[in-house]
Amino acid sequence: MHTIELIPDGGVTSVKGFLAGATRCGLKTQGLDLAIIYAEVPCAAAGVFTTNRVKAAPIHLSQAHLRRGTARAVVVNSGNANACTGEQGYAAAQEMAQLTAERVGVLPQEVLVASTGVIGVPLALDKMRAGLRQITLSAAGGHEAALAILTTDSTPKEIAVRVDADGTSFTIGGMAKGSGMIHPSLATMLSFITTDAALGLGFPQIALRQAVDVSFNMITVDRETSTNDTVFLLANSQAGHPPIGEGSPLAHAFQDGLRYVVTHLAKMIARDGEGATRLIEVIVEGAANVEEARLAARAVAGSNLVKAAVYGRDPNWGRILAAVGYSGAMVDDQLADITIGDVVLMSAGQPQPYDRSLAREALSQSEVTIRVDLHLGSSRATAWGCDLTEEYVIVNSKYTT
Amino acid sequence: MHTIELIPDGGVTSVKGFLAGATRCGLKTQGLDLAIIYAEVPCAAAGVFTTNRVKAAPIHLSQAHLRRGTARAVVVNSGNANACTGEQGYAAAQEMAQLTAERVGVLPQEVLVASTGVIGVPLALDKMRAGLRQITLSAAGGHEAALAILTTDSTPKEIAVRVDADGTSFTIGGMAKGSGMIHPSLATMLSFITTDAALGLGFPQIALRQAVDVSFNMITVDRETSTNDTVFLLANSQAGHPPIGEGSPLAHAFQDGLRYVVTHLAKMIARDGEGATRLIEVIVEGAANVEEARLAARAVAGSNLVKAAVYGRDPNWGRILAAVGYSGAMVDDQLADITIGDVVLMSAGQPQPYDRSLAREALSQSEVTIRVDLHLGSSRATAWGCDLTEEYVIVNSKYTT
Repeated sequence: MHTIELIPDGGVTSVKGFLAGATRCGLKTQGLDLAIIYAEVPCAAAGVFTTNRVKAAPIHLSQAHLRRGTARAVVVNSGNANACTGEQGYAAAQEMAQLTAERVGVLPQEVLVASTGVIGVPLALDKMRAGLRQITLSAAGGHEAALAILTTDSTPKEIAVRVDADGTSFTIGGMAKGSGMIHPSLATMLSFITTDAALGLGFPQIALRQAVDVSFNMITVDRETSTNDTVFLLANSQAGHPPIGEGSPLAHAFQDGLRYVVTHLAKMIARDGEGATRLIEVIVEGAANVEEARLAARAVAGSNLVKAAVYGRDPNWGRILAAVGYSGAMVDDQLADITIGDVVLMSAGQPQPYDRSLAREALSQSEVTIRVDLHLGSSRATAWGCDLTEEYVIVNSKYTT
Repeated sequence: MHTIELIPDGGVTSVKGFLAGATRCGLKTQGLDLAIIYAEVPCAAAGVFTTNRVKAAPIHLSQAHLRRGTARAVVVNSGNANACTGEQGYAAAQEMAQLTAERVGVLPQEVLVASTGVIGVPLALDKMRAGLRQITLSAAGGHEAALAILTTDSTPKEIAVRVDADGTSFTIGGMAKGSGMIHPSLATMLSFITTDAALGLGFPQIALRQAVDVSFNMITVDRETSTNDTVFLLANSQAGHPPIGEGSPLAHAFQDGLRYVVTHLAKMIARDGEGATRLIEVIVEGAANVEEARLAARAVAGSNLVKAAVYGRDPNWGRILAAVGYSGAMVDDQLADITIGDVVLMSAGQPQPYDRSLAREALSQSEVTIRVDLHLGSSRATAWGCDLTEEYVIVNSKYTT
């Protein structure tokens, strides 16, 4: 038995023992663009990264640093992805770690690095050097840091929760950015999670992987996988309970709390998709197995035609079924049900008469729920996306290089 | 040694022994919407169909009819996809075959059926019954038939070639539609190919599959696979040469001719993509194997971000490399070259200085060529797509149901 309580105005520094700060060093045309998250004591650390075979330099460096399983700090910049920058890119990521290590008094190998922004342009290390000297770390600095990682995001994305379980409690804080683009570059999804939970050897990676699979890996804005996607988890053990491992009494509570945090951030990213006006939640039930439920949910959430239909408030259920059909999931179109909001459009494979004004109303909500029951098994999955608007095309076609 | 010569103003009835005709029966709001292609003698026949697991009724029926390997006629309507219409949909497709068989005097099993248009709405068989009686078949009817299968396509898509080889000659004609949508439905790609070549047992299917793999399977408008995609090949043996099988002296000539025809039609479909202003040709070279070259080429041609960049004339090569990176193909970003038109943007993994006005000019052509050399092997593939414009969103988000 455990409870999850939202901490008002929470973020990564809502967790005791974590400080953060940010500054503007000039990599973006305006606004904060460089941040540090710092842990006062060594943390168990884990990361998950883009599956794109073209990976940015900071990803290669952070993967190397994470082999130790511990970390003390994260340094992150926006305005430059440090991707496709050749060998000098890796050296630049190393220097970011080195400069940050000097700034906060830890080893360079204890610093994780992330970048987001333009691809193929060398990092301006002189700007970064000056910027890192200006950053002031504080227990209120999480909000600044959350601002400094944004690109064309319209809002910062932060959350913290307190989990009470078995007479103990711990806190999980998180921040994220995503769904924006810096021309001439890619969207990048970055998220950093802090916790004072005590996590035993290997557990941070297991817990993070599981949580990411049902959250960040279930959102899509434009089916484009960035070269820079990164999620870090830092756990500083300050909550004082015995270390959590797989099967520990607290493991379930921790994973619930972590899933709550990352799902919240993931949905914020989907809602803030480039040009988007509405969040789309796609629930696929009755799939033959979980992997097929995931494939189907993501295909519907990522379909340009479904996204355009939601934008146009068009209850175009044929597009939904067609997306399930090409997703790779098993589907029998003589069995499926399709519902938008509370409006049943197809039942047991038969088109249903429906009230068009109710369907249009369901498609006008800020969060549109599409439910597909395949009636083939008992597996389910949820994916999130956003509608496709003219603004997406405009933002991504402007000549800016 | 063989030559391929374009027949001016050619189409499916440029091949001797094939007649066609079309009429308006009222399934679409305007224009011709019902057509028959008829072969005066029995034909060897083959078909390839959508991989979508949700398949329209006419696809199930045509697959059954093709098991005999022969056919005499194709009946096709636009304005209604006869997809997701339950068991009555299959009965309707059967009746289309039956009515057509009566009209032209063949067996129902010798009739292939295809439909494109709105999903989930029962076929109006009374309209079709009346329409089929009105169709007049003629050796000039190919153009009418090519018009009758269009939905929101802006142009009909036809071609015919004459292949001369080894002292004999044969003709291949083709028509196609695609890249348009009928609200509230899906794009469908349909293509019908006729030839007077004599094709031996099993060869039509082999030849068609190989040709489709490098043509229709290499185009993408919006990464949406329809429930109705269909390509038929009908060969009537009237050219008088010995039957062609795999390894026959004429096999290479026939396949070259067929590939010419279907590639031409495929490029016409890509160029006529919903809202498109430019054709994008993506050539991937130096891939580790052909399958990876195909994956990479299709990923670049299908990337919303690449398509939007082409629309905006933005030489945004990071998006190209990122799409290759998530395609599933092996890529080493330290080796790759990227060229748009004649402008080299990346060479051996290093960003290259380039003339922006020349790059912008290369991106302003009606056919934009993107070339990626992975330098990992000797395999290559070509894919075709179109740019992504506001018009795509507008067309697909209009409330029409």
